[in-house]
Amino acid sequence: MTQTLSLTVNSDRLNQTLADLAKIGKQADSTIKRLAFSPEDLTARQQLTEWMKAAGMSVQIDAGGNIIGRYSGLAEDARALATGSHIDTVFSGGRFDGSLGVIAGLEVVRVLQENKIRLHHPFEVIAFADEERTMIGAKAMSGTAPDDPKRYDTVNDEPIQDCLARAGGDWENLHSASRSRADIACFVELHVEQGGVLEAIERDIGVVEGIVGQQRHRITIEGRSNHAGTTPMNMRRDALTTASHLILAIEDIAKHFPGDPVATVGTLQIWPNSINTVPGAVELSLDMRDLSQAVIDHMIEQLRRKIETVAVTTRTRIRIRPELQVEPTLAAESVQATIVESCEELGFSYTHLPSRASHDAQEIGRFTDMGMIFVPSKEGISHSGDEYTSPEQCAQGANVLLRSLLKLDRFYR
Amino acid sequence: MTQTLSLTVNSDRLNQTLADLAKIGKQADSTIKRLAFSPEDLTARQQLTEWMKAAGMSVQIDAGGNIIGRYSGLAEDARALATGSHIDTVFSGGRFDGSLGVIAGLEVVRVLQENKIRLHHPFEVIAFADEERTMIGAKAMSGTAPDDPKRYDTVNDEPIQDCLARAGGDWENLHSASRSRADIACFVELHVEQGGVLEAIERDIGVVEGIVGQQRHRITIEGRSNHAGTTPMNMRRDALTTASHLILAIEDIAKHFPGDPVATVGTLQIWPNSINTVPGAVELSLDMRDLSQAVIDHMIEQLRRKIETVAVTTRTRIRIRPELQVEPTLAAESVQATIVESCEELGFSYTHLPSRASHDAQEIGRFTDMGMIFVPSKEGISHSGDEYTSPEQCAQGANVLLRSLLKLDRFYR
Repeated sequence: MTQTLSLTVNSDRLNQTLADLAKIGKQADSTIKRLAFSPEDLTARQQLTEWMKAAGMSVQIDAGGNIIGRYSGLAEDARALATGSHIDTVFSGGRFDGSLGVIAGLEVVRVLQENKIRLHHPFEVIAFADEERTMIGAKAMSGTAPDDPKRYDTVNDEPIQDCLARAGGDWENLHSASRSRADIACFVELHVEQGGVLEAIERDIGVVEGIVGQQRHRITIEGRSNHAGTTPMNMRRDALTTASHLILAIEDIAKHFPGDPVATVGTLQIWPNSINTVPGAVELSLDMRDLSQAVIDHMIEQLRRKIETVAVTTRTRIRIRPELQVEPTLAAESVQATIVESCEELGFSYTHLPSRASHDAQEIGRFTDMGMIFVPSKEGISHSGDEYTSPEQCAQGANVLLRSLLKLDRFYR
Repeated sequence: MTQTLSLTVNSDRLNQTLADLAKIGKQADSTIKRLAFSPEDLTARQQLTEWMKAAGMSVQIDAGGNIIGRYSGLAEDARALATGSHIDTVFSGGRFDGSLGVIAGLEVVRVLQENKIRLHHPFEVIAFADEERTMIGAKAMSGTAPDDPKRYDTVNDEPIQDCLARAGGDWENLHSASRSRADIACFVELHVEQGGVLEAIERDIGVVEGIVGQQRHRITIEGRSNHAGTTPMNMRRDALTTASHLILAIEDIAKHFPGDPVATVGTLQIWPNSINTVPGAVELSLDMRDLSQAVIDHMIEQLRRKIETVAVTTRTRIRIRPELQVEPTLAAESVQATIVESCEELGFSYTHLPSRASHDAQEIGRFTDMGMIFVPSKEGISHSGDEYTSPEQCAQGANVLLRSLLKLDRFYR
């Protein structure tokens, strides 16, 4: 086993495979466009399947459209250890988001294969379907995929049934994709940070504590639109000044709660939006995220109290209604500890941090032990052609993934 | 003279003429659409000309398209006393804005004519061209009309030359429309308040202290757009929270200056306007009005200082650039005193107040003594089919106009 732990990934091969994958869907401006279920996505899925088979894996596509490459273990009836991520991208995406986690999993198997090593457990590398929009792949696996086809926000509103069929999935038998703790002992996902924390504090690796929960609300303010010249200040019911009070209150609430929650007003519409008219109505969006559901609930509660006060003082009517709620998913303590051990043994600096973006691991963590490994994103840039993580950083992440899996293979025995 | 002062307007005739004028351009929804230089405007101008002639006035159209009805005085070489307003409307206007001032002037002449009375001074009733958009009529008369035809924001961007020609004006000789203090001794305009002050404090008549000056600015804020999930609160450069600080500062500045200035942010645009993105840029409009140019200048100065502080604390770049500046015009003390005397003698309650909307009197007041008489607007509504001033209120305003003119005829002798 000591010998096994000394294994490392082949950095050149890892980065070359990443580069090969990036050719599929590459645009003239160097962004990657590989929307889920598009021809480019299907081409990439086919390529990945071939690579998996060449690395000695058996490959299946489940009803959720997930590509599951399985590298047999010594105890084939044991629960699986799994890794993976996704290979679909946003409209103008980068080379690393999702792809790194899948290709690093592939590299781990390539290392095991060339060293003729079998783990005790079967080992799965999973490319989840459509992480960027519907997350149908990971949700089908966790059994949380909505039953109603209309709730899937697909590209061009194509029926999700057709999308799935094209990728080898099966809407009618979607439930068959669901897995359990009895089936997967542990899931570890390597991903680029998509934020600037690791770079800012100069750490090699992020040990993810969990994936933040999220609530989205829509806030509407009704005041009264009036002539900007003839309406004295004290007779106004200005929906925009009211909105300003709320926007600053929201920022204030997020800044003063412990644990670094975030809250964002990203959209604002104003009526009638005329230079010489006091704004009569404003609608704005609120997005709140934190690792603790209790903190999110407390923030909303504080905001509701603030809204009551502001509505009275500004003589406006304010309504807030929820539009989305996603519960936080915590990483298993044992998996975090294993990642920390691996970093220390490999001599990589690290920090614990929450993931503030969604990931497939968020769904898998709902039914089994989960952990995530982050590597730095240059300037925190993501969902962009400028997304960048260096070849060394990619290899460091893959090495932490490899070492952690070898340790977990012992841990779950 | 005592006998003359006992004259009163014929309320039925005044209101019937207002109703007759309102038929021209009346829409199915009861709003009035009589855009300047439109067929409806030209029809109304023709009708007014006939009414003026029937009341014993000579009628001329000057190069600025103004209709000038002149009722001869005993001393025909004396300076004129003048009244008037406009008969064009906004797209969905009401029956009183502008029209009341013109028709009340006509009614004054009708009273003089049927009582076979001539004033010492010639008396002019003026219908100014295009008050609602370009104000070319009043500006031509005050000599402040821009030389550049492109600066006239006409309906459908029709060349102002063509508009003027259709109304009997003459772009090439626009300067010939300009008048002076040597020519017009005094101008008094009766107008509906277009605000809610008189109704709120239950006064019959508003004695206008002057017409507020106005400044419009465009404020742009550049922050940095970023992922709403992965960007910690203290690493943000949020253009919308910055805008909120400014919007509240603007309200605060206007509320705490003496003399009831107003300041309005009426438009706001946000980029990229996405629920899960920290806003990277915001543009907003600022409209400030007050009777005192010094107060407006001080408000802008305070805002600039606030902008400097906010830009530093929010780490954004904020620019403010002027887009429009109109200087305030004060009403002549003597004319205000005359209007007050008339109210007291007629037993009407009154208050002094600034006009916070633009009027033709604003331009005429730049070269000669000016005063304005306001009558209440129901709920302050204006530029709307719901604009309403009762027949009694219209007659009260016309009676104050008549009595004030008779008094001013003595004052300027």
